[in-house]
Amino acid sequence: MEGNNLSKKINAYDIAKVAHVSPSTVSRVLNHKNNVNLITAQKVEEVIKKLEFKRNKDKNTAKIILLNIPDLSNTFYADIIEGIKAAANANQYHLLIDQTDLGNTDIQHFMNLVRRLQISGLITFKQLSLSILNRLSSIIKVVQCNEFNPASDLPYVTINDYSAAKDATIQLLRTGKRNIGLINGPKSFRYAYERERGFKDALKEYNISTTKEWLISLPAIKYEIALPIVSQLLSAQPHPDAFFCVSDTLGAAVINAAQKYRLRVPADIAVIGFDNTMISQIITPPLTTVNQPRFQIGYSSVELFKNFDHKNRHLQLETEFIVRNSI
Amino acid sequence: MEGNNLSKKINAYDIAKVAHVSPSTVSRVLNHKNNVNLITAQKVEEVIKKLEFKRNKDKNTAKIILLNIPDLSNTFYADIIEGIKAAANANQYHLLIDQTDLGNTDIQHFMNLVRRLQISGLITFKQLSLSILNRLSSIIKVVQCNEFNPASDLPYVTINDYSAAKDATIQLLRTGKRNIGLINGPKSFRYAYERERGFKDALKEYNISTTKEWLISLPAIKYEIALPIVSQLLSAQPHPDAFFCVSDTLGAAVINAAQKYRLRVPADIAVIGFDNTMISQIITPPLTTVNQPRFQIGYSSVELFKNFDHKNRHLQLETEFIVRNSI
Repeated sequence: MEGNNLSKKINAYDIAKVAHVSPSTVSRVLNHKNNVNLITAQKVEEVIKKLEFKRNKDKNTAKIILLNIPDLSNTFYADIIEGIKAAANANQYHLLIDQTDLGNTDIQHFMNLVRRLQISGLITFKQLSLSILNRLSSIIKVVQCNEFNPASDLPYVTINDYSAAKDATIQLLRTGKRNIGLINGPKSFRYAYERERGFKDALKEYNISTTKEWLISLPAIKYEIALPIVSQLLSAQPHPDAFFCVSDTLGAAVINAAQKYRLRVPADIAVIGFDNTMISQIITPPLTTVNQPRFQIGYSSVELFKNFDHKNRHLQLETEFIVRNSI
Repeated sequence: MEGNNLSKKINAYDIAKVAHVSPSTVSRVLNHKNNVNLITAQKVEEVIKKLEFKRNKDKNTAKIILLNIPDLSNTFYADIIEGIKAAANANQYHLLIDQTDLGNTDIQHFMNLVRRLQISGLITFKQLSLSILNRLSSIIKVVQCNEFNPASDLPYVTINDYSAAKDATIQLLRTGKRNIGLINGPKSFRYAYERERGFKDALKEYNISTTKEWLISLPAIKYEIALPIVSQLLSAQPHPDAFFCVSDTLGAAVINAAQKYRLRVPADIAVIGFDNTMISQIITPPLTTVNQPRFQIGYSSVELFKNFDHKNRHLQLETEFIVRNSI
């Protein structure tokens, strides 16, 4: 399957070319999405079938990419997975998701599994220790997605958490708010560390000292964990007049806690979320947030396997500040 | 690994007994959850280590259960997966998630994969044709989760979609509403068929004929697909004064579309969702919904593998009507 055969060269772009459609349409057909015009889908399927003839030979030994995602409850991952799926389909990888918590488990067990399943590539979503990364990369290609270990040279795709958080906090400061709280995730995550750093540096630029009691690090990104903690903060005097939250789920908790205390958003409490998930749109008022290019993060992670030994393998993708009605 | 060895007998309940904690605490420790008291976690870990000695022998050949979940964007699945994880850990299965769309793909390819990965059990989440189920079950134990094919005798865990939908619609009718719309998912799903049947029968009981234009079947359970369609319904005259939605995500779309037209919920538009996901709590007003025992559905699916050839292998778990503020 490693050979220099023709089938390696067929990808979504080739199919798109022959079918006279866009590569993203081909991806949607390959992923069996419903939002493709039926006639277009048939046309693409015909082209796929033509080219399929060659691909079929590889099917028994399709390369498998394993995604290690310990927690699927955050919808944030779903869009990244869509990007990974599209790239996997385009490159004829098969995708499997594993939920082993690699930082807290018998790594040998996992390595045995990787060998037994003949996995070709592993995508990790948590920052792992250098020793674990070294052991894993001794038997398999590893790409780090979102979270990465800066001490390792392994490829990664990420965003600039520090400046995204700093910029968002400065937006809060520009509205005149001065009592700003941070609702953060578990400190074991690199993003949590980096966003707290960005948050603090923004306050420093405005000569504001951080209030320790308003720097919250939750054990998990869960609405039901955040709600009582934010409520408690808001019931005290003085309380924050703004929050930077590292997830839209947490931003939704702030908005609903404020409502409970009849505090108006954004007049009394301004809120910024993170991720631009569906929650930021359905909450009232809609949540100002930071968009991560989730599909692209996923797609790029898979692409990194293709040029695994190239130099440019540390990707930092751009975030986007999305203004809605919560600041 | 099939043998009658002692390790088979160790499960979460045994560990719980020795550690003097509840089985759910053991599950949380096994799943590396953060919401366990540290001292308790250490105590449990010690007991696990003691028993682990026996389990280690099995690790190289751990039985693998494959979950086939084509779409992970619905948070509904996350809680089911948590239940599956807890049961898998308790029974020393390893869990993998596969996203192959079995209804729309080359089944031989998937069967080759199952063989190659030496999968012990497969849990499906979509209703598959009898021929596909027969082919799969010729090489592997198959348990159907949520969706099932009634023509097959394979085990399943499900809820009574028909009566859950009928009961919910009757709740709407009892509030005095008479112009009721249905926002449904793709007709290819059994739940969609059954819930529509329940919806229609409820209307029949009140001698109300269904309005065809108000029976919406969406190509996917997506907020952004539902929003414009519900908006269009609400902009017409006459428009529905109530909606039964087969998902909380769709219920959220109804609430926000109503808000756009300055229609009050529930006075002008009453709404019932389905699933009791986080969305039903964060939307304003909070959504009346139907709770599915998601954790239990997942847990039971795995348990079915243990007594695979027993008689009682068609489980229908109870739903619960959750009254909030949208009716």
